[in-house]
Amino acid sequence: MSKISADIKEGLGLVQVYTGNGKGKTTAALGLAFRAAGRGLNVIMVQFMKPPENYGEHIAAERFDNFTILPLGLDHMKQRVDKEDDISVSQKTLEKAKELIYSDEYDLVILDECNVAMSRHLIDVDEVIDMLRNRPENIEIVLTGRKAPQKIIDYADLVTEMKMIKHPFDKGISARKGIEY
Amino acid sequence: MSKISADIKEGLGLVQVYTGNGKGKTTAALGLAFRAAGRGLNVIMVQFMKPPENYGEHIAAERFDNFTILPLGLDHMKQRVDKEDDISVSQKTLEKAKELIYSDEYDLVILDECNVAMSRHLIDVDEVIDMLRNRPENIEIVLTGRKAPQKIIDYADLVTEMKMIKHPFDKGISARKGIEY
Repeated sequence: MSKISADIKEGLGLVQVYTGNGKGKTTAALGLAFRAAGRGLNVIMVQFMKPPENYGEHIAAERFDNFTILPLGLDHMKQRVDKEDDISVSQKTLEKAKELIYSDEYDLVILDECNVAMSRHLIDVDEVIDMLRNRPENIEIVLTGRKAPQKIIDYADLVTEMKMIKHPFDKGISARKGIEY
Repeated sequence: MSKISADIKEGLGLVQVYTGNGKGKTTAALGLAFRAAGRGLNVIMVQFMKPPENYGEHIAAERFDNFTILPLGLDHMKQRVDKEDDISVSQKTLEKAKELIYSDEYDLVILDECNVAMSRHLIDVDEVIDMLRNRPENIEIVLTGRKAPQKIIDYADLVTEMKMIKHPFDKGISARKGIEY
């Protein structure tokens, strides 16, 4: 399905995890997505805990026909989310992720905030690991979000912890348009 | 100079640092760059230790007229670099960075691998801090690279350490086209 050269395709297939309490998990996955899209890879980012809004990254991704972002989550920032709804929506997002992975149409699949969905028990860790185990060959998968479960860390090939050393919370700075979203 | 709205511009002005031995420092800065470019910010990434080659990110950046990547470093991967050359090229890169920052034409300036250049004493930490102190208002600056000097960490508003938890070195996997570059 993919138009990339065999030497690129053969290098793919790892499971990467970006976790920790620091900045840059989703952002690093985005950087990877744009880099990969630049190389011609088919890239999709499925967002678990983020609502369908036009963040800067969604606008930027529109420049690429081989990079799509699917924000399929509920809006935890602006509203109180019912736990049952959260579970149901997260489960549907996981089903969508499986469908996309098993379709074998993508070279890089990013499951944004998937770690959070697992750590909050909205989706089942073992079901995610089954999905990873059953993925087609040479698909690179990236999972982002705080509190990656130990089973995921054990299964993954590459794990990076983004650790907060200093954050300007005390200056009263919250998420900024163009920088944080 | 910038075409972005006042509410976005007013939110800018922090100094961010991505450091540590883990993956995702340059990649997170890239993700931030694409997000910001999507929002209309003028973005420039000056690369200290990277040679002018067409990595995936350079190809992707060509889709944006408001995001430029300038790889101004020497190729440390493919050749042995003479220390004097390294110092001279890094100093020129710092001069270029100053020129771009002082021009006040950019909203987001990324100094990629600048921390490495400082930690290797190719450029002077105090000179970099002077540049940061003298930056025009409402310019966001990001410094990436391992071993950020303590003075930089002290001066910065936001510091994230990318910490390697697991890396597939033992599987004999090196940098892969489309993923690592």
